[in-house]
Amino acid sequence: MLKIFSREDVIKKISSEILERIRPDERELEEARRIYEILREELRPYFEDVNASIQLHGSIEKGTALKGDLDLDVFILIPKELGKEWIRREFIKRARKALSKYHVEERYAEHPYLRIKIDDKFEADVVPGLKIDDPRETETAVDRTPFHTQYIKKMLREDQRDEVRLLKRFMKGVGVYGAEVKIGGFSGYVAELLIVKYGSFIKVIEEAAESWREPVIITLTNEDPKVLKRFFQGSSFILPDPVDPRRNAGAAVRSETLARFILAARAFLKDPSENFFFPEKPDMKIIMGDAEKICFKVFELDLVKEESPDNVWGQLLRIKRRIYNVLDSEGYDPVYIDVFWDEKSKPLIYLELPTEYCVKGYLYKVVEGPPIYSHEAVRFIEKQLSQDEGFWIKDNRLYGFRRKSLDNVLRIIRENSNIGVLRCCNPIDPKDLFTRSFDEEYVLWLGETILKIPRYMNRSF
Amino acid sequence: MLKIFSREDVIKKISSEILERIRPDERELEEARRIYEILREELRPYFEDVNASIQLHGSIEKGTALKGDLDLDVFILIPKELGKEWIRREFIKRARKALSKYHVEERYAEHPYLRIKIDDKFEADVVPGLKIDDPRETETAVDRTPFHTQYIKKMLREDQRDEVRLLKRFMKGVGVYGAEVKIGGFSGYVAELLIVKYGSFIKVIEEAAESWREPVIITLTNEDPKVLKRFFQGSSFILPDPVDPRRNAGAAVRSETLARFILAARAFLKDPSENFFFPEKPDMKIIMGDAEKICFKVFELDLVKEESPDNVWGQLLRIKRRIYNVLDSEGYDPVYIDVFWDEKSKPLIYLELPTEYCVKGYLYKVVEGPPIYSHEAVRFIEKQLSQDEGFWIKDNRLYGFRRKSLDNVLRIIRENSNIGVLRCCNPIDPKDLFTRSFDEEYVLWLGETILKIPRYMNRSF
Repeated sequence: MLKIFSREDVIKKISSEILERIRPDERELEEARRIYEILREELRPYFEDVNASIQLHGSIEKGTALKGDLDLDVFILIPKELGKEWIRREFIKRARKALSKYHVEERYAEHPYLRIKIDDKFEADVVPGLKIDDPRETETAVDRTPFHTQYIKKMLREDQRDEVRLLKRFMKGVGVYGAEVKIGGFSGYVAELLIVKYGSFIKVIEEAAESWREPVIITLTNEDPKVLKRFFQGSSFILPDPVDPRRNAGAAVRSETLARFILAARAFLKDPSENFFFPEKPDMKIIMGDAEKICFKVFELDLVKEESPDNVWGQLLRIKRRIYNVLDSEGYDPVYIDVFWDEKSKPLIYLELPTEYCVKGYLYKVVEGPPIYSHEAVRFIEKQLSQDEGFWIKDNRLYGFRRKSLDNVLRIIRENSNIGVLRCCNPIDPKDLFTRSFDEEYVLWLGETILKIPRYMNRSF
Repeated sequence: MLKIFSREDVIKKISSEILERIRPDERELEEARRIYEILREELRPYFEDVNASIQLHGSIEKGTALKGDLDLDVFILIPKELGKEWIRREFIKRARKALSKYHVEERYAEHPYLRIKIDDKFEADVVPGLKIDDPRETETAVDRTPFHTQYIKKMLREDQRDEVRLLKRFMKGVGVYGAEVKIGGFSGYVAELLIVKYGSFIKVIEEAAESWREPVIITLTNEDPKVLKRFFQGSSFILPDPVDPRRNAGAAVRSETLARFILAARAFLKDPSENFFFPEKPDMKIIMGDAEKICFKVFELDLVKEESPDNVWGQLLRIKRRIYNVLDSEGYDPVYIDVFWDEKSKPLIYLELPTEYCVKGYLYKVVEGPPIYSHEAVRFIEKQLSQDEGFWIKDNRLYGFRRKSLDNVLRIIRENSNIGVLRCCNPIDPKDLFTRSFDEEYVLWLGETILKIPRYMNRSF
């Protein structure tokens, strides 16, 4: 029997299959809750004297967690009158004592907090904060979290939790999930707010595909978009936090990440598939085949000091932009640049160039010189002649050939990749790229980088 | 004895050497005058009844002729009341009878006129016109000529005639002399006016080098430059004819020709040499050596009908501009285009391309696609995928590789070089360029085209 599926049918079928894979099962959730109860009982005696409130926040509490992603956010909220000073002095000391039987790692946000690992399966962040009554008095993300939990629990219908899960998994799949600098994308809270706003995963996707334009302005309250645009000038994605509209919940979203999401949304509507949620690892043989046809150079950077991933990523992205811009403005015609860092080994810079660089060691190209009338004209001509090159006039302007050498490209890379804790740079044999790691994230990155196809698309040959 | 020459000394020495070569000798001038007298006596009986005035005009009469360039402009001016109708009906008939013993060729300007050859050495144009009292009543170049002769004879001091000769020869040498469409440059009259204005050859050169900017505005009368700029909008070179300031004597000067002249003037002041007046033919071996390193295609156009050189040149220049613009706007990265025509054989198109076209048959290049937000985005991606190419996002915009094939370049040439009497086109073996002709003009053109060095510069290796 022949059956024609509509696009809606296909999307429904994919969604329900994906949900089977991403909805945490009851046992898992119960275990997480049980662990939270244990932690709470272990922490309570150490914070009872100051009347602290111990609370679970994050996606488990909001009912929007993904399977296998059951990290606990345990908040210890201290009465406001004790203040930050008390937190600084007492929190880590007391929490360490309470959790001495776990593997504990001290980390830094606005205040130091503890990350503990339980059975290699769960991770819990134990975070200090102040009890605050009015969200407009909050100063930090930690302070606001309880209000976020409360808002989402109130506004999200139970059936919409799965919609959040689909959206989060889609965002992960296409590489735009996370407010960290590395991704510059959508936080879990933003994903939840989008479902509150539009009602369902597919509505968000349709909205993004059809009407999002940078800067995207979305309101859950009654702000005037024009005012928001001015107030959050420079933001690509403006979504005022409903619990504190002076703050842009989407501030982390970078222009390029937004573009990736919009493109993915359009591609999904055109040709929906599970690939958007769980991209397939590309075939290393195909990657290696394509790599033969292009010209690229790879460098490993040294990290001279430990620093938070966000800071290092910020420096990496500055290096990426700076190298590209210098090469571009000096006429070296860079094709593509990207950075990769697994946050464990050394960061990589991948730079792709016109193939002539690899074939001949230089690019021979026409450069536009100054207008004939300018005083630069004579200098341009002298430079051409000194390099044994000619020049010609077209429409009032001088033109000539220039040899752009690979050596100069490498010099520019060396000169522009010492930022912050990063130091330039060891050239890597391009072939080593293909054996360096087989981590999913690395292979997906390598595929996108060499094949120039988003990870969610199947390149058909 | 060591002697240091100043630049002024060098220029003086060069000027006097050049003048020796370009100043016509007395014998030559006398012969020209004698021939004019003979022609006048032969013409007189045929135009006596209408009281015509027979006059000599042009550079011989003005005393600014170059040696070996002693063409006679014989004007037969008819009383105004007889009018153009009489000229049309009677002039050619009567003039042919009067000059029946010469080799006569009928040519066309505003009216038909006769060109006669005498002893293979002199050429005389016998041209009809109306006797007009006020230059402001003139309508055609022919009508104005008597006033030009009169003005120059009055305004030019005798010692300045050599200055005109130097300037004209310099303009010839650097390829900007002539108001015909082929050159789009400075007429003899404009050269004379420039000497009237600035006093000497070197003053004109200094003025051009130091302060000419397009549009150049030069007045011999009292016009307001701002008014002139508006009145002669679109002109690159504005020099109101002093005998009729509503007319721009420099109207023929094209932007690129002006730029060539200015550049040559600067180069001359920097490093004066005789090359500017008499460029040396470049060495064909060097041209052939350089040609090996570049990628170019040559085509011969067919002329399907005879037409005036100005018209054909106009069509050639349109073809040149059109092919370049289409290739450029469609992303084929043309390097250089030019046309050559000796006004006898078939016109040539020379098109230079990035070397990849010759090596691989196509150019593999990054193209900038539409912004991600535009509706073109999906079409761009589909096109990339259909061509088995990827795409990527940078700053809100899509990019991708494209193969620009040589076949398409050739198709664009074929489709865009049928204008007027010109029909596209037979591909020419590039090697044939080097044996096609050894005419000075051709070899100078070929040198400039391949070497990309102005003809007046010695390329030093």
